[in-house]
Amino acid sequence: MSAISVPKIRLASGFDMPQVGFGLWKVPRDTAADTVYNAIKLGYRLFDGAYDYQNEKEAGEGIRRAIADGLVTREEIFITTKLWNNYHRREHVLEMAKKQNESWGLGYIDLYLMHFPVAQKYIDPSVLEFPAWWVDAERSAVALDKVPISETWKAMEEVVDLGIARSIGVSNFQAQLLYDVQSYARYPISALQIEHHPYLVQPQLILMAKENGIAITAYSSFGPQSFLELPEDFSSKAKAIGPLFESDVVKSLAEKYSKTPAQVLLRWATQRGIAVIPKSNSKERLLQNLDVTSFDLEDAEIACISALDCDLRFNDPGHYLVTSPLRIFA
Amino acid sequence: MSAISVPKIRLASGFDMPQVGFGLWKVPRDTAADTVYNAIKLGYRLFDGAYDYQNEKEAGEGIRRAIADGLVTREEIFITTKLWNNYHRREHVLEMAKKQNESWGLGYIDLYLMHFPVAQKYIDPSVLEFPAWWVDAERSAVALDKVPISETWKAMEEVVDLGIARSIGVSNFQAQLLYDVQSYARYPISALQIEHHPYLVQPQLILMAKENGIAITAYSSFGPQSFLELPEDFSSKAKAIGPLFESDVVKSLAEKYSKTPAQVLLRWATQRGIAVIPKSNSKERLLQNLDVTSFDLEDAEIACISALDCDLRFNDPGHYLVTSPLRIFA
Repeated sequence: MSAISVPKIRLASGFDMPQVGFGLWKVPRDTAADTVYNAIKLGYRLFDGAYDYQNEKEAGEGIRRAIADGLVTREEIFITTKLWNNYHRREHVLEMAKKQNESWGLGYIDLYLMHFPVAQKYIDPSVLEFPAWWVDAERSAVALDKVPISETWKAMEEVVDLGIARSIGVSNFQAQLLYDVQSYARYPISALQIEHHPYLVQPQLILMAKENGIAITAYSSFGPQSFLELPEDFSSKAKAIGPLFESDVVKSLAEKYSKTPAQVLLRWATQRGIAVIPKSNSKERLLQNLDVTSFDLEDAEIACISALDCDLRFNDPGHYLVTSPLRIFA
Repeated sequence: MSAISVPKIRLASGFDMPQVGFGLWKVPRDTAADTVYNAIKLGYRLFDGAYDYQNEKEAGEGIRRAIADGLVTREEIFITTKLWNNYHRREHVLEMAKKQNESWGLGYIDLYLMHFPVAQKYIDPSVLEFPAWWVDAERSAVALDKVPISETWKAMEEVVDLGIARSIGVSNFQAQLLYDVQSYARYPISALQIEHHPYLVQPQLILMAKENGIAITAYSSFGPQSFLELPEDFSSKAKAIGPLFESDVVKSLAEKYSKTPAQVLLRWATQRGIAVIPKSNSKERLLQNLDVTSFDLEDAEIACISALDCDLRFNDPGHYLVTSPLRIFA
């Protein structure tokens, strides 16, 4: 068992979610099982995956091995995964939830999220297993489909009824669509996963989620950092702005508390009740990222970090889908 | 007939909407009929009303008098009006559309908009005719209701089927909800009415609307100006920022083109294909506001005005509904 104690967040569904997890985006398939296994050894209990990350099966293998080796029990583990855009129709939601659950091989999914509020046309996985946003090199084949969000949400509720997922939620949603889902939801929106860092604070959206009992999980907590390794036109925005790790306020607070800038950025989020899902390839940083309760920032310090806000979004399909405009954050 | 020629915008429904209209918000009930009659004499053809403005009947009287006097025909007039939040349920949409259409007394509504993407609990008009956002002095009685936007939109489509409205649209919607409505709409979203001025440009939302064939109507084109006359806590934001009429770029362009700052602000919108609905109590300004084709700004000048953007929204229920938070723009 890990010495590091990670707080838990009670979801609207009644289940508890660890406040710090390991994000599986960009974790290579061939090392994912070992990466996950080692993260469990270090104390990670929450793994944040997605169909789109293409490594659910391998992440599940790592977890199953850790359970087999007696490192953890299934109940101590919390897996989040996400429904991709091409599978928003009812029958595809049910099909994919089953398929994804089988890939993980852990009996059930703890939290199943709608990845984006965007339906793309169905592509049979036997034709193309992982469609991503586009299916051609020109990124012109982003074919949207007319599937109401209510159809997808209601199918996700059936996924709960079937015992495949325990809690459900959404990702990349704006407030208006959250209110609308609430108007017909049989099960609560347990979580909202959003890009959230000091360059994109979205205080009103966070307040709205709080007022409505929706837990927030921040992705890309280090801001531009997560995007630097991507191809040029995805990383240009990230390269154009200074790294958060080198911002004066973050650096000086890291010094004050003898923590790393990454730890300061994570604490800025967790101290406000937000869950985080960083990833790292270094054992030392993995441990540091997990340790978010050994210090507290002062309110004024949190405000200083929040003052870096410039509404700068890095994960915006409107930015990288050059020929098929999609402005889901407008 | 007026000498001033106002361009028209072809809506997705196939009907044409004048690009400049007269906004009826805050026009007192007892002078509304005369105000509208005189505006028609000056060349106004589009009147932008709402149930919430409490002057539909009087505005309709003014128009009917102008028709009776031979100033215009019904077909030359275009009336926009809006469904208030308390009437989002199907049966109330149908009831209110009929009732509002009777108030105007012009046979049909040209454009019927959902005023806000927010359903409040039904209050019978015989109990309280105009509920506004709250029904008590403490503004604590904002009672939301769980009515899916799809129910309201589909009922508005029935209003078209019944011949009560020719075109339908929405107001104060974000992109995600627009995409969602499009996924189930039988009739196109013909128009989106939003707060739009140089302090709140929303270029992505405007692009999204354009790409989706949704005409944009700007309200509060003069920014803070529209809010100064409201009670203190509604006007505080507006009072805290400099008037757009006195911004250097607007003033210098007004001088360059021998126009008023108001005309520069309206031309900044109309030249980009956006409809505007200013109002004024002065005959001279009414004529000036209508005259938006006698000069063109240069692209760089439009960009200079747009550079005033600071994402500052004045009409935000999240700001003035103090005890019942509602964050519909997050």
